[in-house]
Amino acid sequence: MEERFDEKVAAHMLEFGNQMPGLQQYLGISFVKIEAGRLWAEADLASQEPTPSGNLHGGVIAAVLDHVTGAVVYPVIPVGHWGATTELKINYLAPVAPGILRAEASVLGLGNRSAVVRGEAYVEDRLVAAAQGTITIVAPRVQAET
Amino acid sequence: MEERFDEKVAAHMLEFGNQMPGLQQYLGISFVKIEAGRLWAEADLASQEPTPSGNLHGGVIAAVLDHVTGAVVYPVIPVGHWGATTELKINYLAPVAPGILRAEASVLGLGNRSAVVRGEAYVEDRLVAAAQGTITIVAPRVQAET
Amino acid sequence: MEERFDEKVAAHMLEFGNQMPGLQQYLGISFVKIEAGRLWAEADLASQEPTPSGNLHGGVIAAVLDHVTGAVVYPVIPVGHWGATTELKINYLAPVAPGILRAEASVLGLGNRSAVVRGEAYVEDRLVAAAQGTITIVAPRVQAET
Amino acid sequence: MEERFDEKVAAHMLEFGNQMPGLQQYLGISFVKIEAGRLWAEADLASQEPTPSGNLHGGVIAAVLDHVTGAVVYPVIPVGHWGATTELKINYLAPVAPGILRAEASVLGLGNRSAVVRGEAYVEDRLVAAAQGTITIVAPRVQAET
Repeated sequence: MEERFDEKVAAHMLEFGNQMPGLQQYLGISFVKIEAGRLWAEADLASQEPTPSGNLHGGVIAAVLDHVTGAVVYPVIPVGHWGATTELKINYLAPVAPGILRAEASVLGLGNRSAVVRGEAYVEDRLVAAAQGTITIVAPRVQAET
Repeated sequence: MEERFDEKVAAHMLEFGNQMPGLQQYLGISFVKIEAGRLWAEADLASQEPTPSGNLHGGVIAAVLDHVTGAVVYPVIPVGHWGATTELKINYLAPVAPGILRAEASVLGLGNRSAVVRGEAYVEDRLVAAAQGTITIVAPRVQAET
Repeated sequence: MEERFDEKVAAHMLEFGNQMPGLQQYLGISFVKIEAGRLWAEADLASQEPTPSGNLHGGVIAAVLDHVTGAVVYPVIPVGHWGATTELKINYLAPVAPGILRAEASVLGLGNRSAVVRGEAYVEDRLVAAAQGTITIVAPRVQAET
Repeated sequence: MEERFDEKVAAHMLEFGNQMPGLQQYLGISFVKIEAGRLWAEADLASQEPTPSGNLHGGVIAAVLDHVTGAVVYPVIPVGHWGATTELKINYLAPVAPGILRAEASVLGLGNRSAVVRGEAYVEDRLVAAAQGTITIVAPRVQAET
């Protein structure tokens, strides 16, 4: 992880990461801190509609973890490349009420073509979900393939 | 699966399933057909903001698969019980542009306390994502626990 | 899947698949039938030492499913290429006593560089474990990389 | 994790853990250190038959990780209870030649009925595989159920 860390990319993500339209905005995600192979984020899910049981839909937490585990690779891959989540597995440890969700992501291993990543979601200090998956590193103008 | 199939629950899901607020509405999901341990759904993701690469955010597809693999258990568990996704693993097979996503879910195994489920997402006839996971069956007024 | 199916490779696997030394022999695996993107196998686990609870160690079932989901790709990839399991997720549905385990594997999607696969393990007609994962397709003399 | 840690169970595992017959013996696993919710182990895989590509069969590494992620719960669950792996997901980061494999396991969350666990396998200091899964906690004389 230490070989490569693009501070410009990280700084850009910290400044503009919460201005991407679409899912990230719907989930109220902003990046809080970024290091080589590590990323800390916060999702403001206070306005999310709870399920009948009063909790956040698991799919919302899945989307947050999908987002941060995909984002964590950008400062450690070549500029212009992008990361496509190939597979992700999530364990839910506790029900979560609408509110602030903290999320962390880390790169376990990085090759030329893929990275193995982990992520965790917390409500205050309580771990509520954990993820592990693979990000495919895609070079510019190369068609993504399975 | 054949031992128990609550047609009233299934009929209710087909009629009102797309009127639940929150994530399901955001994802435009409606249930199309339900059998014992099987469920077919459609998600209208045409208005979803694409990522910079022009595709749907993987988190959106994750949320759809999380939703249908959780929903498929309702007609086969006792009325009043609910299903909480304990863990889910998703493989993404192809990038997906905003549009209509078909999703299917099936129950592989069902016990008193949990079900093992699978799900698939298609664009037309092309498989674009596959899921496998566990749904914990929670009895009424029993606190969910890890 | 239909585009490519190497009958010679399949025939060779059916004839000699159970003569590979190492894990396959330890697990008593033989291939029973092979079609394009489908494989049926049998593992003779009758002589396996049970755990204190009288069941097979889950690791044994994991190894069988790892093996068949890796093997199923060979007749559908170019000769000389090999398949390396990149990730695999297994759900255990029921405890299994030492005896005969049937296993099936199928290819959900196949690209130039990887395949998404599923597998199931049965005792007689009872599903006892289900798997989903990714096989990386490695070209000859190309160094495997993450 | 801190609430409960049975030092007697841990001491017993350290002393006799490598004398269990079956898979553990086949894999040459011994426990090296145990703390509350953490476990360090070593698997002597030097005599394992390599695959044609000269590496350990992934199923062997899966079995080691299945074993240690299941074992780590014993000192933190009531005596007489046992842990059954319900599901496990493994990412393989690098090919592994026959030799010594170090493995670690940790408990991410523990409830009355299940634990969420992670595991890592190393060759010297290189991470070669990572796992995440669920262990169901089974009370004595209670029939295991899905």
